[in-house]
Amino acid sequence: MEPQSKKTKRNQRIVYISQYFISHPNQLVSLSYFADYFACAKSSISEDIDFIRDVFQYNQLGTIQTIAGVQGGMIYLPTLPEQEEQSLMAHIQAELASGKRILPGNYVYLADLLQKPHLLDAIAKLIASKYQSLNLDAVVTIETKGIGLCVEVARYLNIPHVVVRRSSSDMDGSTISVNYVSGSHQRVSKMELSKASLQPGSRVLIIDDFLRNGGTMLGLMSLIEEFDCKTVARCVFVESTNKDPQPLPAYDSLLKVEIVYNKEASRFELQSELGNFFDKK
Amino acid sequence: MEPQSKKTKRNQRIVYISQYFISHPNQLVSLSYFADYFACAKSSISEDIDFIRDVFQYNQLGTIQTIAGVQGGMIYLPTLPEQEEQSLMAHIQAELASGKRILPGNYVYLADLLQKPHLLDAIAKLIASKYQSLNLDAVVTIETKGIGLCVEVARYLNIPHVVVRRSSSDMDGSTISVNYVSGSHQRVSKMELSKASLQPGSRVLIIDDFLRNGGTMLGLMSLIEEFDCKTVARCVFVESTNKDPQPLPAYDSLLKVEIVYNKEASRFELQSELGNFFDKK
Repeated sequence: MEPQSKKTKRNQRIVYISQYFISHPNQLVSLSYFADYFACAKSSISEDIDFIRDVFQYNQLGTIQTIAGVQGGMIYLPTLPEQEEQSLMAHIQAELASGKRILPGNYVYLADLLQKPHLLDAIAKLIASKYQSLNLDAVVTIETKGIGLCVEVARYLNIPHVVVRRSSSDMDGSTISVNYVSGSHQRVSKMELSKASLQPGSRVLIIDDFLRNGGTMLGLMSLIEEFDCKTVARCVFVESTNKDPQPLPAYDSLLKVEIVYNKEASRFELQSELGNFFDKK
Repeated sequence: MEPQSKKTKRNQRIVYISQYFISHPNQLVSLSYFADYFACAKSSISEDIDFIRDVFQYNQLGTIQTIAGVQGGMIYLPTLPEQEEQSLMAHIQAELASGKRILPGNYVYLADLLQKPHLLDAIAKLIASKYQSLNLDAVVTIETKGIGLCVEVARYLNIPHVVVRRSSSDMDGSTISVNYVSGSHQRVSKMELSKASLQPGSRVLIIDDFLRNGGTMLGLMSLIEEFDCKTVARCVFVESTNKDPQPLPAYDSLLKVEIVYNKEASRFELQSELGNFFDKK
């Protein structure tokens, strides 16, 4: 690039630093990193970041926190703007009300929603923003349908995603397994996880796409305990209210769905409402 | 924010527009969208984007293309900066050379690499950047280990990710299935996919974490054909060179690994080299 004015240089820095924060959510970065990259004073970078912080805040894009000390730096905590959150949930509820969603065994077809990159991304950002202050070390799910959501939440939280398997695989090395009561048939099944996949002492967020009876979640919690880890929070995309009453630990759901019989139309329909994820503290 | 000078407003716009492009890769956005958001002239937005385009280009962050016409707008095509690409691949090769990677049946333990959000993100960005000009409609993988990579590549390409199942599930609705020769046991297995998951006529990129004999990839291709879709490209993270010679369609691999016996140390070791993904055209 040709020699440029001070203002132009400053604008170049704020473009670069803005994209850096967005690309590295929940990742600590030092002033020195940017000062070295641009060969300029830390004080200039500091002013740039103050400016970006204000714009992010004003547009509800999240906060840029400053961590003091030698090991300190800045960390970007993303949020979904309120208006996007509302239109996202309204869109999902409209989708849930349409199409062929009710499957045998009171399961609900959700895969199409979690396949779409912009929906998946927005849902994951929303979920991550609720738990990003909990000092989490891993996001755990069980194969298969919740994996996409787990991966995206883990990306926003900048921690590993961990996928528990329903059956053993030849590719896993040594594993730890537990039995659990599978919701689909109320029978005892086995879930297992490679020993190398989850570090002892980890603080874990459990993610799943759908909760019916909660047997799978109880199984995941006991498996996580076997790894000497702690389940700190549990979040499901959709929970069914057509379920057996069973004591479950507290969990958050984005949506509650109920299968109701429409007498006039002579068919079952899906009704949805916002879940306790959105309850004010 | 309080009323501010025109100069300050431009700074605010370029922060917002920069983060928007980074958050919406491969997604068309109109000048009007930003002009409405900021209540300013399209010509100002156009100047802002020209500036951002230059900064992105200079820092190898990707290109912002302009699509002319009424349905036109701008679209951001991300790339991984060359230096990041080199350090990424060097890091992965160092990881492959260390630790307990060789599993029974000549499988290679890779899950830890694809669990880490920053590695997964960089690998996915690299892969997506190679195929983003192919007008793809979906990214397809088979459960379970490649799903994370598939999800992240699909996010960068802004198209749905599709997960083929190895066994039927009660939650899938109606499915189409094919038989294939499973690499792990050279036996015939079944893979299937919900009919609603993939639209007829889609142009598909196949993604997998590991390729040994290619039986799974051939199975995926015939399943995709059953959906009246076209496999346009195939990409695997790691391929094994310890494989039976079998005619396979062209595919790209990021890394080739070979299991070799180290006589002095009396143990098997993993050697890796860059795959044909990096071949110059």
